[in-house]
Amino acid sequence: MRDTPYLVVDVDVLEANLAAAAAHARALGVALRPHAKTHKSPDIARRQLAHGAVGLTVATVGEAEVFAAHGATDLFIAYPVWAEGPRADRLRTVAHAVRLRVGADSVESVRMLAAAVLAGHPGAAPLAIAVEVDSGHHRSGLPPERAAEVAAAALDAGLAVDGVFTFPGHAYGVGAGGIDVRAAAAADEGRALAVARDALTAAGIPCPVVSGGSTPSAAAARGDVLTELRPGVSALGDAQQWELGTIGAESIALTARATVVSRRAGVVVVDAGSKVLGADRPAWVSGFGRVVDEPEARITALSEHHATIAWPTDAPLPRLGARLRLAPNHVCSAVNLADELVVERAGAEHAIWPVSARGANT
Amino acid sequence: MRDTPYLVVDVDVLEANLAAAAAHARALGVALRPHAKTHKSPDIARRQLAHGAVGLTVATVGEAEVFAAHGATDLFIAYPVWAEGPRADRLRTVAHAVRLRVGADSVESVRMLAAAVLAGHPGAAPLAIAVEVDSGHHRSGLPPERAAEVAAAALDAGLAVDGVFTFPGHAYGVGAGGIDVRAAAAADEGRALAVARDALTAAGIPCPVVSGGSTPSAAAARGDVLTELRPGVSALGDAQQWELGTIGAESIALTARATVVSRRAGVVVVDAGSKVLGADRPAWVSGFGRVVDEPEARITALSEHHATIAWPTDAPLPRLGARLRLAPNHVCSAVNLADELVVERAGAEHAIWPVSARGANT
Repeated sequence: MRDTPYLVVDVDVLEANLAAAAAHARALGVALRPHAKTHKSPDIARRQLAHGAVGLTVATVGEAEVFAAHGATDLFIAYPVWAEGPRADRLRTVAHAVRLRVGADSVESVRMLAAAVLAGHPGAAPLAIAVEVDSGHHRSGLPPERAAEVAAAALDAGLAVDGVFTFPGHAYGVGAGGIDVRAAAAADEGRALAVARDALTAAGIPCPVVSGGSTPSAAAARGDVLTELRPGVSALGDAQQWELGTIGAESIALTARATVVSRRAGVVVVDAGSKVLGADRPAWVSGFGRVVDEPEARITALSEHHATIAWPTDAPLPRLGARLRLAPNHVCSAVNLADELVVERAGAEHAIWPVSARGANT
Repeated sequence: MRDTPYLVVDVDVLEANLAAAAAHARALGVALRPHAKTHKSPDIARRQLAHGAVGLTVATVGEAEVFAAHGATDLFIAYPVWAEGPRADRLRTVAHAVRLRVGADSVESVRMLAAAVLAGHPGAAPLAIAVEVDSGHHRSGLPPERAAEVAAAALDAGLAVDGVFTFPGHAYGVGAGGIDVRAAAAADEGRALAVARDALTAAGIPCPVVSGGSTPSAAAARGDVLTELRPGVSALGDAQQWELGTIGAESIALTARATVVSRRAGVVVVDAGSKVLGADRPAWVSGFGRVVDEPEARITALSEHHATIAWPTDAPLPRLGARLRLAPNHVCSAVNLADELVVERAGAEHAIWPVSARGANT
């Protein structure tokens, strides 16, 4: 018996998810480069590569260091890295160890990247840039028609250019009036990437990589435009994807095991709170995560060590000490709170996988 | 130069906050038992005890283990611990090492606690119970008029009874129509604790400890009812307290140092996202944290590694590479994401404090 709360990965569900992502990419005719920020686990990364992924996507130099140290050979830091201070040296070291691509959305940042890996150092390292463009999420990324500015600056600075990428994060949402938000975001993604690719081509800059992808938009991704998909969450699934309709509950591979510590009429309180599930709670979800075995239950409040669950009146209220499986709203946040994942197969413990890149934020 | 993002504690602000909390408790005539889940730091706990705290509050057996290992001698696990499995043995070990009080809101849980520390073990350990009552937050806790049921069961099972406690978490909020939510919650706290104390007394059970407290309600806490206060956040401060009006920005001792990685008209994006700040975002706050040096800026969106900040049009937009100080909405969540705190005095690095109890959720 293991003390709750802890995170469990059902390895058979994980394997089915990895196989489905690989099959989808094959059917679209695009490369799969899953985002490892979701799981931060070399064990899961190894399985993704075994399913045919061409490499991994990561969010930080720190994550790149961890996955390089665990044998990855091809990494994309899909982030506008500002390569100043110790980070410059760390980046150069990774660029020596693996085939490395880094995101950029400004001329200034590519100059910093070039200075980090090339100029003034005896150990110059090859580095390829992918230009980030905004396809509607309005986070980082240039307007797509300006992608060539950054690509040209990268070439001028002595860096390679792989191509362009975007993150259609506006696929996370529920539309009013029957609008399919996920399909609309995938269409935006395709349009923006096509404009960006054409901008590079018009400037005489080859654009072999056209990289898109988010888990909710992946089903509608434009295989005629994209050359690469970068889904993250689909490996493990979470309550957000369930509520978006991207997946069913049976595809949620990661859950938190939690114990009922308090109960009253219609309510149980369990010991997995925001320090286990994460506090992510967009307006369009029904609560702070979901109870996998009781879909009508709602997590109405979350403290650091309490989830307050409104239990359906027609279902028997769990006893004190009962163990429930909760799906976090956002699996990436939950994994990053844990030091290890307890791996189960058919309900029995099978392995412990370290969350090797937990906290690798720099 | 240190790579961002990272968490910084301004030690002078921290000291002022600790002194203020101690002075407030003295003025009220109550004991101070600060909640260590906020900082998870033995270095900060030591300073709290030096300021006169009678002991520490923690949320889990795991936190109790950490603080006991670092020299704490008097701990209150203010949580309805379900003492089954390995946790029972761990609890008994802690109960041998320190003066230990544990929360309970059910007869079943006190029986489990008694079995854990007393029955069938050669090494019986003393353990005191505090009965948790609900003062309006509606999380865990019995109705106050029923507190004696659990206290009597504890005595029957051979445990000691310290008294009663509550957490007036409904002090977190902004009232409509001029209602002072924090003062109202403090009044609820006082009423509920008085009822619970009187219920124990009526049952012939002494009630030396009447423990309340949350940072927002502490200013209005009823010194004529309470014997003990358990504020957590006040040690470090955060954007929630700033927006509630509990503190001013000058009392925020913990900030995340973040770098501008992308910018466009009126917007900067920095590299501290939800994996550094935490994703806590109650409906009544203005964004996903605050920019300490630019109070008019608003963090309008938060991804795992991006904070999107709407910058006031009449202020100069920070350059790429500029470093900003962000106050997390909820400091307890941010600290729990970090392995260490960078301690500064007058802007210069002074020490590194490990977050020793990070992830101690069980």
